[in-house]
Amino acid sequence: MLLTMDNPVFQVYAVAAALAVLKLMLQGWMTVYRMLASNSGLVSPEDLRKGLINKNPHPDQLEPSDYVERSRRMHRNDLENIPAFLAAGLLFTAVNPPLLVAQVLMYGFVLARLAHFLAYTTRQSHEMRATFYTVGSVIVIAMACYVLWSALG
Amino acid sequence: MLLTMDNPVFQVYAVAAALAVLKLMLQGWMTVYRMLASNSGLVSPEDLRKGLINKNPHPDQLEPSDYVERSRRMHRNDLENIPAFLAAGLLFTAVNPPLLVAQVLMYGFVLARLAHFLAYTTRQSHEMRATFYTVGSVIVIAMACYVLWSALG
Amino acid sequence: MLLTMDNPVFQVYAVAAALAVLKLMLQGWMTVYRMLASNSGLVSPEDLRKGLINKNPHPDQLEPSDYVERSRRMHRNDLENIPAFLAAGLLFTAVNPPLLVAQVLMYGFVLARLAHFLAYTTRQSHEMRATFYTVGSVIVIAMACYVLWSALG
Repeated sequence: MLLTMDNPVFQVYAVAAALAVLKLMLQGWMTVYRMLASNSGLVSPEDLRKGLINKNPHPDQLEPSDYVERSRRMHRNDLENIPAFLAAGLLFTAVNPPLLVAQVLMYGFVLARLAHFLAYTTRQSHEMRATFYTVGSVIVIAMACYVLWSALG
Repeated sequence: MLLTMDNPVFQVYAVAAALAVLKLMLQGWMTVYRMLASNSGLVSPEDLRKGLINKNPHPDQLEPSDYVERSRRMHRNDLENIPAFLAAGLLFTAVNPPLLVAQVLMYGFVLARLAHFLAYTTRQSHEMRATFYTVGSVIVIAMACYVLWSALG
Repeated sequence: MLLTMDNPVFQVYAVAAALAVLKLMLQGWMTVYRMLASNSGLVSPEDLRKGLINKNPHPDQLEPSDYVERSRRMHRNDLENIPAFLAAGLLFTAVNPPLLVAQVLMYGFVLARLAHFLAYTTRQSHEMRATFYTVGSVIVIAMACYVLWSALG
């Protein structure tokens, strides 16, 4: 059976998908950390109430802050890529690709997203960030095309 | 077989995932309702054309309105959590966890997101909203870690 | 087995899901194309550095541009619908629906999203865009309800 842990391709998918899920969830926590560390980047009017999270409220805390917004942009970029990878990778596994191809594409996606994260966090050039985005995006597109070709062929 | 309705864990996943999908889709309709009810919060210039949806167009309708934007923020928060849960829950099912653990984690996620929805809609404190977000997020992270541990163990 | 290419419903799902993944990924490339073609719509301060992507940097490039933002709004609308469809469609396949129902709903979703894309790109009325959004959204909701009814029935 293809969608079980007995299938080595599914094992590769499970590892890559679990790492991609962790990347996505941890990006939310990076935004939380940056909001707390910089005491800015809040989004709802009620967040200006005094409390454990916000001991000295100030209206400026609702102004966008690049430090916090950068993490939100990284999160949005993840949302535009990771859920599509999770679905495309499962379908790709279901059409029984060669193990080596699955390893290269799936671990390649995880590495490309990790590199994108590092380039975005450290404010590298648009060109470098775009390169890693492209690698991840092309991998997802290639897997979806392979699935279509298998299903319709 | 693990990914079939014969597996009680998959049944739990199917119920929790279907509820999470409904939550996600209905959030879009809450935004639609709020746009129509408040006659504001439109996003595209062409939405100012007169028509069934907009009988008395006015440029102010393109200004952000907290009533509508609140629903969009809730939607964005869903997008940051629910697709990751849908994938992590399927992988978690595939590594055959104890039924009770699956029930606690999966129904726990659904309840945490419901509580987050109620807290956000009624403008509860940032602390309360953050607590429910944390419960849901930690559940997804725990499921992804369990999958990694099973796949690599 | 239901989640294999031997099941005609899974084949329909695989084709519809692969097309939906491609739609989602290509929307990102439409944003890239529009940023390059209009030389505007950049989002990060470091994108104003001179480089291959940006040969004549200017601060106005960080201002929102409707041409680029329209593609981002389409992308956001995809993110609010396509990942939920990918999960709901898989669960729907797992509860073994009639083939014809699966074909109508799944290909219907793909066609509704294609029509939504065309209406949004060409700035059709809010009513037309809303109609195609509604068709796609109701299909996902119907599939999720059918799964719930099967799992709890």
